Amino acid sequence: MNGAESLVRTLAGAGVEVCFANPGTSEMHFVAALDRVGGVRCVLGLFEGVVTGAADGYARMAEKPASTLLHLGPGLANGLANVHNARRAHAPVVNIVGDHATYHKEFDAPLTSDVEGVARPFSDWVLTSTDSRSVGRDAAAAIAAAMAPPGRVATLILPADASWGEAGEPAPLPPVEPRAEVAPEAIAGAARALRSGESAVLFLGGPALREPGLTLAGRISAKTGARLIAQTHNARVERGAGRVPVDFLPYPVDAAIKTLSGTSHLLLAGSKAPVAFFAYPDKPSALSPPECEVHGLAAPGEDVVGALEALADELGARENAPLQMREKHSSSTGAASADGAALAVASSLPEDAIVVEEALTGAYAFMSRTKGAAPHDYLQITGGAIGIGPPLATGAAIARPDRRVICLQADGSAMYTVQALWTQAREGLDVTTVILNNRSYAILKGELKNVGASSAGRTAHAMMELDRPALDWVSLARGMGVEAGKAATMEEFDRQLEAGLRSEGPYLIDLQL
Amino acid sequence: MNGAESLVRTLAGAGVEVCFANPGTSEMHFVAALDRVGGVRCVLGLFEGVVTGAADGYARMAEKPASTLLHLGPGLANGLANVHNARRAHAPVVNIVGDHATYHKEFDAPLTSDVEGVARPFSDWVLTSTDSRSVGRDAAAAIAAAMAPPGRVATLILPADASWGEAGEPAPLPPVEPRAEVAPEAIAGAARALRSGESAVLFLGGPALREPGLTLAGRISAKTGARLIAQTHNARVERGAGRVPVDFLPYPVDAAIKTLSGTSHLLLAGSKAPVAFFAYPDKPSALSPPECEVHGLAAPGEDVVGALEALADELGARENAPLQMREKHSSSTGAASADGAALAVASSLPEDAIVVEEALTGAYAFMSRTKGAAPHDYLQITGGAIGIGPPLATGAAIARPDRRVICLQADGSAMYTVQALWTQAREGLDVTTVILNNRSYAILKGELKNVGASSAGRTAHAMMELDRPALDWVSLARGMGVEAGKAATMEEFDRQLEAGLRSEGPYLIDLQL
Repeated sequence: MNGAESLVRTLAGAGVEVCFANPGTSEMHFVAALDRVGGVRCVLGLFEGVVTGAADGYARMAEKPASTLLHLGPGLANGLANVHNARRAHAPVVNIVGDHATYHKEFDAPLTSDVEGVARPFSDWVLTSTDSRSVGRDAAAAIAAAMAPPGRVATLILPADASWGEAGEPAPLPPVEPRAEVAPEAIAGAARALRSGESAVLFLGGPALREPGLTLAGRISAKTGARLIAQTHNARVERGAGRVPVDFLPYPVDAAIKTLSGTSHLLLAGSKAPVAFFAYPDKPSALSPPECEVHGLAAPGEDVVGALEALADELGARENAPLQMREKHSSSTGAASADGAALAVASSLPEDAIVVEEALTGAYAFMSRTKGAAPHDYLQITGGAIGIGPPLATGAAIARPDRRVICLQADGSAMYTVQALWTQAREGLDVTTVILNNRSYAILKGELKNVGASSAGRTAHAMMELDRPALDWVSLARGMGVEAGKAATMEEFDRQLEAGLRSEGPYLIDLQL
Repeated sequence: MNGAESLVRTLAGAGVEVCFANPGTSEMHFVAALDRVGGVRCVLGLFEGVVTGAADGYARMAEKPASTLLHLGPGLANGLANVHNARRAHAPVVNIVGDHATYHKEFDAPLTSDVEGVARPFSDWVLTSTDSRSVGRDAAAAIAAAMAPPGRVATLILPADASWGEAGEPAPLPPVEPRAEVAPEAIAGAARALRSGESAVLFLGGPALREPGLTLAGRISAKTGARLIAQTHNARVERGAGRVPVDFLPYPVDAAIKTLSGTSHLLLAGSKAPVAFFAYPDKPSALSPPECEVHGLAAPGEDVVGALEALADELGARENAPLQMREKHSSSTGAASADGAALAVASSLPEDAIVVEEALTGAYAFMSRTKGAAPHDYLQITGGAIGIGPPLATGAAIARPDRRVICLQADGSAMYTVQALWTQAREGLDVTTVILNNRSYAILKGELKNVGASSAGRTAHAMMELDRPALDWVSLARGMGVEAGKAATMEEFDRQLEAGLRSEGPYLIDLQL
């Protein structure tokens, strides 16, 4: 058994069943080991950002670590933007990055780089496994590091000679760090704030946005009148009809400030204190009112559900909150719009669908319109590195082949990782992608004004227009083997959406806004 | 004047005329300043790897620094693979990377990362410009750093408040470090080796592969019998009919060793000692024979041409070498092949074309067949980070609108930065791309065997096949506004190539191998 095989055996033994991969020469032994070992499914991506974004989507939906296989420093670099998103999503991901043989590094061959240096800014844990006999043990440590709460990014660098050299045994998974219990003082402090009669917000993230955390948060809200607000960007929210309704904190700074204004107590449950996504001249970075007291009830890596349970007990909050009613929408007609599309998606959403949303300027329409749709999971871009939607949808579909995936996707962002469509076709995934094709970086037009760059002229505005030439998304999708159709009216969109949700395998709708 | 404007003025003042950009919110002031200042052309890429690869191509052909505009850590990360290639090409590139406002960093907003840490592994020079008043001076220092020999990557990080704050004056370019003169002992040592009567190779890189370095190398070869061999991967080679012919050191280790076997003296002129691209079990890392003496005549950053001149003088080498004859090829017929395509390209190559080659398994055919074609520049992938071809061709075409660009491109590699086609269409660039569509990562099939992973089975081989589904390159190109055609026979390829070379603006040929 060589190092690579001990690595694959260790992954399989720890329940890491999927490896999203874009391998090169230095990873050939790992690839070869897949046939000998079994138990690890390898999913090919044609670009590393697809690989890492799919790992994120898989980890969010499978609730177990995803692994990736990447080729040296530049291959890892190509995947880092979505590693950043995965890390902000607290998705457990183990990156396996091949490197030159240890003795070859000093020759500074063309692909040589400081792989640890490349990994570090976006990893919580980095190790180079320099000895084939310790690869199994190092891999097991990487998996445990990724599984440590709240879910982490671990990067294991595997020199080629550690891969092909004689290995020791594959290693069992060491004990995984549990979520830390919340101190009784934090519970007591939160209870005091909620009993004060002053305006309070329970600010939710992570496990607080999924059952049973959500039910507990609902009880606390029903008992105390505290408002429930979710972070602006979340890894996964269980929502829709029959669930505790939670609004998202708006992205625009002014709207976020307005939402939180008058709040005396902000209780963080699996969330971080709300901050502006970007700084703008003359606008604050912190979004809660200056006089608001921020209480750390449970940090993202702590036992968030346990803290909510303790708080609900402490408050005697035993009654469930009213649940979200099913909303019926009549379908819209005429010219295509994001809001019309949101209404149509909300009406047609299959039960237990997975909604991946990277709609940017279209996000608000989708969030608000799907609130009363059939119950679903809602997956967002967590780190702001655009180009996550199509890979995220790909990974979510791999994790949950029993559920429909709908990807609501801005056109500009979709181009960064457009190659994900090919993996969807190759794997026959039931992903329906709606491209909100406004032929521009629409969000930047607003941002240009927000940052006070009002003197921008023709050249500046040309940097935000994608209409010369217009992208033909039907052509792009078909080029990668994905069936697709255009919709310029809402009637056409209804027909396309029906076709998409009925299709076996992926489908793309080019919605011409 | 704000910091951003002082930056743009500094760039324009130093002759940095093109900025390849994929901006976000934190770069809006820079973008707005473009209209007020003039003198800097901004070229939009829909993915950062396109931006940085185009900067490389521009810098190689324009012989002046290119600049890029990127958005925070993840945006920079997306561009790093081609920054790696640019650095290995010694292309002078100034990356300008926006970051959060200095005071906003501590809030750890979703897009926050250690931007300096992201930049460092692939930059020769990194600086964060924290004060709007010093942005001009910092930018001038960055440009000078990029221009320092042999050509470097400088990354300037620009926090949003340094961009929008009140600036000082734009700064003039400080003195640029000259190429270091080569010590007389190095010349004398090389001359002794060449006079020894023992077998010698002049191993050429950088300026030694362009006029007048090449002419001088030719004279030395004519006088002493030393063989001229170019590095395997070069930023730019002036070659074709009427020029001093130079063979490239082969990529496969065994072939490279054979080429250099029997060599007693290897003289490095603008090159590094030849090493295996990857390590393979039981194959050496160094490619020159163990008994061969390696002489450092001129390092890549030294005065390579001056050293060749001094050496030629020392040797009394005044006669020019025989120049490459024009070779005529008859066109091939029947089934499409890389070699047939190479013959056709060699026959049809316009005078002074720029050939960008990322053909991987097809590279040898193109290199050898174009040796006697019309004079041309030959641009290669220098750092091994695949996905450089289409961006490189884009940047080269921006730099030299007077010349035709032909991009000879492997299909798997092309997918990494496929978005470059859109920029070619938008800018109306005369780039003809030939996709060598073998529906596989063909090079990996050989590598699997080379690394000794011979036991690979069905799963492993599936990781190297891109045929399920096959990529339809005509559809992909048209989706980005690029005219395209398929060729399954050599007759069809001849017709397509003629159409491509005649077209105004970009054209893509999907060559079905």
